[in-house]
Amino acid sequence: MLISQVGEFALIKRFRKAIRTDASVIVGSGDDCAVLAHDKKHYQLFTCDMLVEGVDFKSCEDPYLIGRKAIAVSVSDIASCGGLPRHAVISLGMPKNTPLKFIDTLFKGMMSVARKYKINIVGGDLSRAQSIVIDVSMLGLAEKKNLLLRSRAKKGDIIFVSGALGGSIRGKHLKFIPRLKEAQFLVRNFKVNSMIDVSDGLAQDLNHILEESKVGAVIYEKSVPLSKDALNLDEALYMGEDFELLFTVPPKEAKSLRQHRNFRPIGEILDKSLGLSLMDKNGRARKLALKGFRHF
Amino acid sequence: MLISQVGEFALIKRFRKAIRTDASVIVGSGDDCAVLAHDKKHYQLFTCDMLVEGVDFKSCEDPYLIGRKAIAVSVSDIASCGGLPRHAVISLGMPKNTPLKFIDTLFKGMMSVARKYKINIVGGDLSRAQSIVIDVSMLGLAEKKNLLLRSRAKKGDIIFVSGALGGSIRGKHLKFIPRLKEAQFLVRNFKVNSMIDVSDGLAQDLNHILEESKVGAVIYEKSVPLSKDALNLDEALYMGEDFELLFTVPPKEAKSLRQHRNFRPIGEILDKSLGLSLMDKNGRARKLALKGFRHF
Repeated sequence: MLISQVGEFALIKRFRKAIRTDASVIVGSGDDCAVLAHDKKHYQLFTCDMLVEGVDFKSCEDPYLIGRKAIAVSVSDIASCGGLPRHAVISLGMPKNTPLKFIDTLFKGMMSVARKYKINIVGGDLSRAQSIVIDVSMLGLAEKKNLLLRSRAKKGDIIFVSGALGGSIRGKHLKFIPRLKEAQFLVRNFKVNSMIDVSDGLAQDLNHILEESKVGAVIYEKSVPLSKDALNLDEALYMGEDFELLFTVPPKEAKSLRQHRNFRPIGEILDKSLGLSLMDKNGRARKLALKGFRHF
Repeated sequence: MLISQVGEFALIKRFRKAIRTDASVIVGSGDDCAVLAHDKKHYQLFTCDMLVEGVDFKSCEDPYLIGRKAIAVSVSDIASCGGLPRHAVISLGMPKNTPLKFIDTLFKGMMSVARKYKINIVGGDLSRAQSIVIDVSMLGLAEKKNLLLRSRAKKGDIIFVSGALGGSIRGKHLKFIPRLKEAQFLVRNFKVNSMIDVSDGLAQDLNHILEESKVGAVIYEKSVPLSKDALNLDEALYMGEDFELLFTVPPKEAKSLRQHRNFRPIGEILDKSLGLSLMDKNGRARKLALKGFRHF
């Protein structure tokens, strides 16, 4: 049996079942970040993301943008848990014949994002490898009252996204701006019940919220904001790497949140028994396929 | 210009120069772990290590041992800073056609070390890759008074190692036991001035202490404990992956420490101007070459 026959999410579940954690772990594997006890007011957030040549970027792409992305994906994870990024370590595997210019530019891209969000790069590991692989681990802090998880969506919540979706492969996946400012605005001004960032596609990431929160949902086709790079709705639903915030708020909050153009309501949280469906322009609902980006 | 023409350590220095950190960073890039402000009594330690197929292990090797090593190298880093490991995240890149059995056994190896040292595995990232690559990031805690760095060796200190060196490629590099117990014994019972773990070879790792502490040293050839796997002294000096503790203590402490058979005195810290030399059995000193394991 090969891992490709098991699938990415089944593999993760397999590993998670075997893991035991102590009381210092508020939320372990299974959310955008791990949540650890820190001090009276704060949790510490801990996340890692691996970027692999040929999967997350091509070697012909601008190394500055690859470096940006390597840091930005972790910032997006911290943001979607309601925290601020603080410290990061970087592991970098690369072939011996990598041009110095490539690595220098990659590093400049990394530093540009680190500086922008006041992230301390505090260590790393360089290794020889067959192709380029970058792993960034990041620590952040979230005020306890601001912590956002996938697991707290409630029936009746309105589902929002922070921007247009789809077509990220045509550029946005390397140039996206992590929605840290937006996430902080939300936690400071609204009651948000659940949040995730869209990395694997709207359908699949919304499904993570549904599974963890034990609820269902309907998405309104006409409300899903399509990116100018998106060729069709399917790309908005399934392509991934949009790195927009996907979150749910109680109906009362939704009213005032609708006035902020940055945040678009796209659906509603329903009872678990109703699963995940898409309602078309004629008011007909169909079950939404749970495909999206998967490594295996 | 290729990175292989620049070399691993020059590359690291290049990056470090561009990095700025704030007051939360007690020690940034350049030691076994980053040291971060935590609470009144403790520092937080943060380290990452990337293991790459074909460099750190071969795909034909027992995946259980590969998994063990992936966690143990980070435990060794935390130990050598005087801390205890607490939390880890694991990024794992692997080809689609990896057998499930391989990954299951790798994971079992990881968990065996995690359980032994009470490390919480709190998250991870799975990615498709051309070959297997494992990156582990680990957090630990060190009592402030117990923090050990590379940078505090003093002239007159006696240099110790925690075990025999050399020949690790013949098995020990996959089976070593990180010296956490020994490091904790040392910080609780002795005044230790500096410490590092031997990952790149005695000469090169001692040189890290010398550079960071701005001192020199002499190693006594007759005192270097050779592992049963070591073919000759050169392997003890240059092979690396021994994962023994290399540390320095003031002469007074050395006296009582000599009575513990686990710790062997192998040399002495001297003035910086004397560099790093090896004294042979006839009392003749020669400059020690600074070779050892390097990725580039």
